[in-house]
Order: sequence, then C-alpha cells, then structure tokens
Amino acid sequence: MSVTVRGNGVALRPHLKTAKSAEVARIATAGEAGGITVSTLAEAEYFAGHGFRDILVAAAQPPQKLKRAAKLQGRGVKITLATDNVDMARAIAAHHGELEVLIELDSGDNRAGIKPDDPSLLEIGRALGNNLAGVMTHAGHSYECRNSDCISRIADDERSTVVSASSQLREAGMRCDVVSVGSTPTMTYARNLDGVTEARPGVYMFQDLMQVEIGTCTKGDIALTVLASVIGRNESENRVLIDAGALALSKDRSTQATPHDAGYGEVWDLGGHVSLGPCNVQRVYQEHGVVTSSEPLPFEQLVIGAKVRIGPNHACITAAAHDRYYVVDGGIDVIAEWDRINGWREVS
Amino acid sequence: MSVTVRGNGVALRPHLKTAKSAEVARIATAGEAGGITVSTLAEAEYFAGHGFRDILVAAAQPPQKLKRAAKLQGRGVKITLATDNVDMARAIAAHHGELEVLIELDSGDNRAGIKPDDPSLLEIGRALGNNLAGVMTHAGHSYECRNSDCISRIADDERSTVVSASSQLREAGMRCDVVSVGSTPTMTYARNLDGVTEARPGVYMFQDLMQVEIGTCTKGDIALTVLASVIGRNESENRVLIDAGALALSKDRSTQATPHDAGYGEVWDLGGHVSLGPCNVQRVYQEHGVVTSSEPLPFEQLVIGAKVRIGPNHACITAAAHDRYYVVDGGIDVIAEWDRINGWREVS
Repeated sequence: MSVTVRGNGVALRPHLKTAKSAEVARIATAGEAGGITVSTLAEAEYFAGHGFRDILVAAAQPPQKLKRAAKLQGRGVKITLATDNVDMARAIAAHHGELEVLIELDSGDNRAGIKPDDPSLLEIGRALGNNLAGVMTHAGHSYECRNSDCISRIADDERSTVVSASSQLREAGMRCDVVSVGSTPTMTYARNLDGVTEARPGVYMFQDLMQVEIGTCTKGDIALTVLASVIGRNESENRVLIDAGALALSKDRSTQATPHDAGYGEVWDLGGHVSLGPCNVQRVYQEHGVVTSSEPLPFEQLVIGAKVRIGPNHACITAAAHDRYYVVDGGIDVIAEWDRINGWREVS
Repeated sequence: MSVTVRGNGVALRPHLKTAKSAEVARIATAGEAGGITVSTLAEAEYFAGHGFRDILVAAAQPPQKLKRAAKLQGRGVKITLATDNVDMARAIAAHHGELEVLIELDSGDNRAGIKPDDPSLLEIGRALGNNLAGVMTHAGHSYECRNSDCISRIADDERSTVVSASSQLREAGMRCDVVSVGSTPTMTYARNLDGVTEARPGVYMFQDLMQVEIGTCTKGDIALTVLASVIGRNESENRVLIDAGALALSKDRSTQATPHDAGYGEVWDLGGHVSLGPCNVQRVYQEHGVVTSSEPLPFEQLVIGAKVRIGPNHACITAAAHDRYYVVDGGIDVIAEWDRINGWREVS
C-alpha cells in the first residue's frame, strides 16, 4: 500500500481502526511522515502514548468530547478532527482554536458528510475560520464493488468530491492544505489522485474474506485468523463444533451477499491452508461455532481437540473481539504478543 | 426467575455468560445455594476469584484445557464440566478424577449433545466412571418461539430429554445426581419440571428486544442499554448519525426474522423511554450508527451532542463489547461501576 499510494504522489496516513496496535502502526508508517488515522479518542490517546504525534480522528465527535481532544493536543500531539456540521464547527472555533479540522464530504457512501455542492460547505469553512485545515471523504461504498473497474470509478468520484470542495474553499479565500481520501479498495485501484494530499486505507494491513470478494487481495494475503479447537463431532450430520462463536468471530456477515458466502468465517488448518475442503462456520452461538461443508468433512483430521484457524469475513470487527495478537511468522510458534486498544474509555 | 424456578421445586444455577459480572452474580444467587453456570474457563476463574465455589462450565472444553480446569478445582472450587464425547470422557477419567462431569444431551437445539436414545449415552457414562455427576441440556431452540404455548412445549421436550437420560443411566447402575436444564424462555413458561434438579437461565437478568419478541418480557424490563451521542444530522434524508456502531452495539441481528425488526437496536431517549417514535439503528459501520424512523425524526431533540440510549437485540452479545457497566437507578446518575470478565485468557 505504501508503494501504491506513493506512486500516486500522495502521503499515506494509514487508518489504525482495524489493527488498533502500536506495533502494527509502526510497520505501517515506516518511512512515512503522514501520521496516522484513528476512529476514536481512545485510539488517539493510546497511539499518542506510543509516540505518534500527528493523528487524524476521522469519525465525527460530539461537542462534549472536544475537551478530551484538546487535552491530547495539549500533550504535544497534533490532533485533527472531522465535521460536517456548522454548529459543531462554531463550537470548535469558539472554544478550541488549537484544533485542526477537516470538513467531511459525502462521495456516495451516504453515511456522513455533505455533498460537494451543498451551500453549507462554505458556511462550515467560514465558521471554522483558522481551525480549517482541509477536506476529507471516505468512499465506503467501494465495498459494494466486485471488480477493479467499479472500484476505479468510485475512486474517481472520491477524488473529484474532495478536489471540488477544496477548489470552492480556496476560491472563497479559505485555507485547504489537506485533501484526504481513502479506503483499501479505492487506494488499491485509483487511476488518478491529482489534487489529493493524503490517503487513509486501513484493512489492507490484515485483509479479510470480504476484501477477497471485492478483489483487493487473495486468501493468501489474509494475515488475521482466530485459533479454535474442535469440541464436538457429529459425523451423521457432517458437522463439528468449535470453541469459537459469536464473541470470538463476531456476528459480521459481510460476505453474505457475495458469490462466496463464508458464513461466519472459513475454516483452515493450523498452518492456515485450505486443506480441510470448503469448510465454513455456518452458525454461531455465544461460544460455539458449527462447522459444516458442502463435501464430507475430514473427520480423521477433525478429532476432539484438533486446532483450526478461522479466516474472518471482516478483520476490523473480528479483531475487536480480542485484546491482543499472537504473532506467528510462517509457522505456528508464537514469536510475539502485540496489544490492542479496545473500547472507548480515556487512556491516560 | 428465582421465584419461578423455586416454585417448580428446582435449584437456580444462573448462567453468568450474559452478565459476566460478580456484582450481578451476587444479586442472581441471593438466597440460592445452587452455584452458578459459566461458558468459559476465564469466566470460571473470574467468579472463583470473587468467592463463587460451585461452578458449572456448560460449554464443552477441548482436552488441552482440562489442566486449567483442574487447577481451578485445586483452588477449592467445585468445577463441573460437560461433554457429549466418549474420547473426552475417557481423557477426563484417566487424568482428572477430581472433576465432576455432566453428559450433554440434545433436546432439539441441534447444536451440541447426544440424543437421549443414542447408545453412546451409556458408553460415555461408563467411560466417565466416578466423574459422572449427571446430565444436562439447553433448549436454545425456544428462541424460535413467539408465544408461551410453543415455549411450554419445548420446555416439556427439554425436561423429558434429560429425565429419560437420567433414568437410563440409573437403570444401568450409574450415578445421576444432577438433572440440569435451562433457558430464559423455557424456565419462564415450563409447566412441569419433575425430575429436574437445577435450571440455568441467563439473559433474564438483563432481557433484550429478542426476549420481548419471544414473549418472556416487555420493553420496560430491559435493563441494559448503550449510551450514544448524536454526531451527525441529515434532515432531508430523515436520519441522524450516532457514535455507536458495530463495535459498541455488535452486529447481532436477532430480531431480523421477527415481526419487529429493530435493526441494530431501538433508539430511546436518555431516560430509556420510547419518546423518539419508532427509531431504530438501521445501519452500522465500525463506529457509526445510522438512525432512521418510519416517522419524521424529532430533529428538535436530536441536536448534535444529544444523548440517546440503544436497546439491544441480544444483551449477551452487546454487553460483551464493553468492559464494565455504568449502573443507574431510575435516573441518569451513575451510582456504581461494575466490571465484567471478557475474553478467554487465564485469570490468575
């Protein structure tokens, strides 16, 4: 991703909402000066505590959390927030002149942000005054694509949305240094990032089954799996029970609407290989997963206590079920443990 | 639940997999001597550390975790495990004579357990030898009911399954002191628990929107909500954005197949009242929730920063996204913080 993004002449500001790990962040920012992106103030506090000094909090915050953001800024960390609301812009400008702010645009995702032709763009810009640092958008609807042409078209929309907004702000005499875009699919297949200054992909660090369906990676690229053990066998119904269920895998069903519905995850052998046939976790209960297959399961391998690895539908959500990573390097021996920042409480 | 279960002459062994909190467990076991039920060894270790001395681990464990269970038993805690597998029964009997074990039966849930007419019932019983303490089942398929008659019929199946198994074991000269059943729906509407010795309901402590659909409670009984703030408004599309998404609410969609699909949760006012109209969280992203309504949203209330409470589809899964409870008593002032045991790592 570093090579791809730099090849487009853009700074990489990797989104750490997936990995939430200082160790992973250090790998992602090696050789880059663009800082990082996070989605919560707890993440910002955690990464600040690990030496990161330039942090964009890309999810809008409510006004009651501005003091907490400003406190972090007071610790010598450059904090940038995002807003699409003029009341929030006024609240920031009135009380927190030290915070940088990006105006959030909607490039088609239909979640947050204003459209680039919305007259409130200039109103928010004026309300922010000296707090205004630039514009941002996230083309999350690239996840609906199933081929690179579709993704490239959405990447064009993503780019043109923020470039249009930045032009309007500059023409009105306002500052717009930062023009920020990003998702793993659009940054993988963008054909042109002219006018963009930084990119914020995140899930590329681990990849997952949904990214395979979108076409941004292959299964061999997936770095995150959940280790589970066989705790039950039912040969007559061609299923085994594992000790990873809704809490260990999450209830994310991202691949449900794709040609390869993986249930709650694909079941691989302990080495991470697809040697067990087309095995999926078909149902989950809180601590149980029911594994089935369209072919006869290899019961000789799936003895009670046998370990398997579950490839996740959506790495961001599955990783959040765990408080650390057990790091392996090509084998099964754990060579390191890396912590994560979960939850929303203030990290002092 | 205590009154209902005792009214049937049965001991309450509340399942703490939902609450995972020592404070909640103390309330649930007040006046009871039946011990508690948990679903992981981490929960067992946590509750043992808080003085609980009789713990059933109701989810089957793999053989590599037997030492960990035995270690807890060595700390003076009576640990009971469950199995439906003869190899596991032999492993326990060979190496861990100190552990009590229940044979798990399938009363129609189609998850774990053997059918009561399975010849391996007696084989597992004999393999367990002195470790055999009794039988158990969980009628999880009661969640498919939408009225009390349906639940009562499943409660009958749940009871007859374990009573039949207990009779077969006793007739074969084996010990079967414990005859254990339980789910919140079946324990609420069981007409007859003759032959049953203990009940293991769990979600009744908090209740949730799925339990409302099943018919075991009303919305006013739901004790668990997620506090969230409005972070975005889109009046033209009749939606607001809140700062609680997939990680804070979970991606559980239990009510999807019911007459009242609540999306990812119902949106109530700060006091927990249904004063905002038929508001649901329709979509979630990692940290964003999109709130919509079939009626015009009350935008005058839903200003930026306004707080709302989200009623959960499934309390067990939503609660697991958080590391503590903020306890309120009829109002909005926090009167206590109660911790939770999450994850699977050993609690020393």
